Amino acid sequence: MNNFSFYNPTKIIFGKGEIAKLDTLIPKTAKILLIYGSGSIKKNGVYQQVIAALGKRKVTEFAGIEPNPFYETCLDAVKVIKQKKIDFLLPVGGGSVIDATKFIAAANFYEGKDCWEIMSKQSEIKEALPFGSVLTLPATGSEMNKGAVITKSDTKEKLAFHSDKVFPIFSILDPETTYSLPKRQVTNGIIDTFVHVMEQYCAYSVRNQISDRFAESILQTLVEEGSKVIKNPTDYDIKANLMWAATMALNGLIACGQPEDWATHMIGHELTAFYDLDHGVTLSIVLPGLLRVMKKDKLDKLAQMATRVFGINEGSRGERADKAILAIERFFRTVGAPTHLSDVNLDASCIEPIVERMEKRGWKLGEKGNITPAKVREILQNRL
Amino acid sequence: MNNFSFYNPTKIIFGKGEIAKLDTLIPKTAKILLIYGSGSIKKNGVYQQVIAALGKRKVTEFAGIEPNPFYETCLDAVKVIKQKKIDFLLPVGGGSVIDATKFIAAANFYEGKDCWEIMSKQSEIKEALPFGSVLTLPATGSEMNKGAVITKSDTKEKLAFHSDKVFPIFSILDPETTYSLPKRQVTNGIIDTFVHVMEQYCAYSVRNQISDRFAESILQTLVEEGSKVIKNPTDYDIKANLMWAATMALNGLIACGQPEDWATHMIGHELTAFYDLDHGVTLSIVLPGLLRVMKKDKLDKLAQMATRVFGINEGSRGERADKAILAIERFFRTVGAPTHLSDVNLDASCIEPIVERMEKRGWKLGEKGNITPAKVREILQNRL
Repeated sequence: MNNFSFYNPTKIIFGKGEIAKLDTLIPKTAKILLIYGSGSIKKNGVYQQVIAALGKRKVTEFAGIEPNPFYETCLDAVKVIKQKKIDFLLPVGGGSVIDATKFIAAANFYEGKDCWEIMSKQSEIKEALPFGSVLTLPATGSEMNKGAVITKSDTKEKLAFHSDKVFPIFSILDPETTYSLPKRQVTNGIIDTFVHVMEQYCAYSVRNQISDRFAESILQTLVEEGSKVIKNPTDYDIKANLMWAATMALNGLIACGQPEDWATHMIGHELTAFYDLDHGVTLSIVLPGLLRVMKKDKLDKLAQMATRVFGINEGSRGERADKAILAIERFFRTVGAPTHLSDVNLDASCIEPIVERMEKRGWKLGEKGNITPAKVREILQNRL
Repeated sequence: MNNFSFYNPTKIIFGKGEIAKLDTLIPKTAKILLIYGSGSIKKNGVYQQVIAALGKRKVTEFAGIEPNPFYETCLDAVKVIKQKKIDFLLPVGGGSVIDATKFIAAANFYEGKDCWEIMSKQSEIKEALPFGSVLTLPATGSEMNKGAVITKSDTKEKLAFHSDKVFPIFSILDPETTYSLPKRQVTNGIIDTFVHVMEQYCAYSVRNQISDRFAESILQTLVEEGSKVIKNPTDYDIKANLMWAATMALNGLIACGQPEDWATHMIGHELTAFYDLDHGVTLSIVLPGLLRVMKKDKLDKLAQMATRVFGINEGSRGERADKAILAIERFFRTVGAPTHLSDVNLDASCIEPIVERMEKRGWKLGEKGNITPAKVREILQNRL
């Protein structure tokens, strides 16, 4: 097992009816910026629950955070914060709304020339506005981690930053708020969660029993509940299991002591930045290709996963690894996710701009740093 | 799944050589009380590593914390803190040393008449001294939770308290510090961890996939690594897996959304208080009896555990439950733990004092509050 450190101070409040607890979680005197997306929270009643719980607190609203949140939109929010002397942020929505809030919280105090440096130069965050979240779309894990991904619309760059200063103080997770999610978002959430786990699990083995088995626990839960959820969108326990799975998939826990990959995400981010695909869609397309091209490096884990997650006991390690990749693709299709570039109307011409950018950045991805731009080409060619 | 909240701000630093990081974790100006037990840390080199890492900081030592830490000893430590104007506590040892530190940290500011009220009246803790720990004996999970168990020597009472104020700020877990542990302590640690998991897992099912599978992950790890550790006491990965398993077993994580039992611990505490048995020893004796007597209430979970943890796929639910209990007893004996009162030279006469005390306190234990004193008698009679 590798050495590691683990720290996660976010308080989770989980379950039906828990949005009412906002009243006990936010200071009575807080000047709140309520941050959300396209306004679906007004249709499903979440907005109304939040406003009721906040009572007489001063609330300013900032709507319109995009699904892949734009840097430029975040800067507008910072202006509102300064104007209205906001001292507490309350994102209500999915990972994009929470990610945007993290950037807004940090950008508000950023002293450098250009806030984009938080991503481009990974500048240190010295201070951030406090915030707590109400999650309505389980997928990114942003509700219980310190990372965020922001997109610059003019240069089509999608980059991440991390800081202990942007852990949510609390996050409220009520599975009932996810009943009204469109099928596409449910699918994206399942894929995102699945691939988060794979990035932290499917490298080489370091005899790390707890993190391996915790990861497998999440994968098994996704496979079992993911297959049922489309037909049972208002089954509380199915929704609760998927919601908690998504949080556990990216709160630092299953990374403890493990080598990590993250190449599928890095390639996926470029697909989103260039071709405006949903994040989840890019992942379900890229992952099977990456696993095939990098199979030799991931053989032990793929074979272990075949047995423990998919119940495949027959065959050599190599054969079980192949079967695991097929089982993953089959699962992705079961939940309605695309697995090839042609499924989203992209052809071979989409590949070179991505490879070129990676060459320019000098990126070598993966747990061993051996996923070169040439390998990325191979991976994407596998997905035509 | 039940509603729940989860909060755990302790920072974990895990791995070989990590004790040196104390220097970055404790303020340079801290006046430290170094708290430990019988002095084994001086024989295995841990003490020397700690002192080297602390450098020029002011350190006062307080040795002699008992395996089941005494209230009276803790009060002596509080006197030293006041005398020496200590502002940071550093327990180095196992769960008893960390438990004692939690009580000392809280008792130092307690304003009531008698600090024992922290346990007996569950008085609110308003303030506690900050502390970080160096763990050398994986078992209790105290290094990453907010609970402690303290014993009053004159009245033979062993009681617990919990407070957000007594989370360790950090805990350093170096598996190499556990190489020199005597076999008895390794066994006790495995049993304690196993039973912690069972208390949070083996009640009735609430369709809680993540917590169920995380619990099973820990049980599987204990069964696999526990069987190997006695013959391989200096295998780093075995020791690392057991150490991380113990922390994960009682840091709040696997309790999320679950009904909890804790009757085995409550009965075990009385066996320790009256007959001075090791905590782990009381648990390996009591658990199989409790599972037999309460089998009907725990049928689903026992059958599920039979399949998922012990690979028992044959038979009805009832038969698999019986086989799971037998497999647990067999595992306990494999790691050298006693499973009957006669193994520790106790006979039927040990039972009534415990039943009487529970009657006096009006305790009804277990996840359904149906483990009456009469059931406790039945459980202990099963273990003669």
